Amino acid sequence: MSYIASIGTLAAILTTAAFVPQVVRVIRTRDTHAISLIMYVLFSLGVSLWCVYGLLLGLWPVMVANLITLLLALVVLAMKLRGG
Amino acid sequence: MSYIASIGTLAAILTTAAFVPQVVRVIRTRDTHAISLIMYVLFSLGVSLWCVYGLLLGLWPVMVANLITLLLALVVLAMKLRGG
Repeated sequence: MSYIASIGTLAAILTTAAFVPQVVRVIRTRDTHAISLIMYVLFSLGVSLWCVYGLLLGLWPVMVANLITLLLALVVLAMKLRGG
Repeated sequence: MSYIASIGTLAAILTTAAFVPQVVRVIRTRDTHAISLIMYVLFSLGVSLWCVYGLLLGLWPVMVANLITLLLALVVLAMKLRGG
């Protein structure tokens, strides 16, 4: 793998993994007050489209990374919808 | 532009624009309690690497979209660091 591909891989891992501590925080505290509902609606839609994009171009890393991000974002969104 | 490129463009616009309502919310309410500090640290690092990736490959849409996302994420991060 070229060093540019390595940078892309690390970037994808970081932007996906970033949502793990947010998911842990909202599940543990049940506090979602400061979190923007509109952000997670738009973000989930956008990440879904990145999945479709990856699927259509056969870019499996793009598809898988965004699918994981989508699942994590949907947990935050669900907690926000439950918590108000 | 092919329909696949259109999907990618819409995906990029959504995942970048998603952070605008979060920025507005933290500035207006000064409340960042539910927001994960670690999420915004990891996410900012990841988006920075996506900028570098776009720069190295000459993918200007990737670079510009991620640069805007980075600026928005840094505002949330700064407000979190100020607010605790």
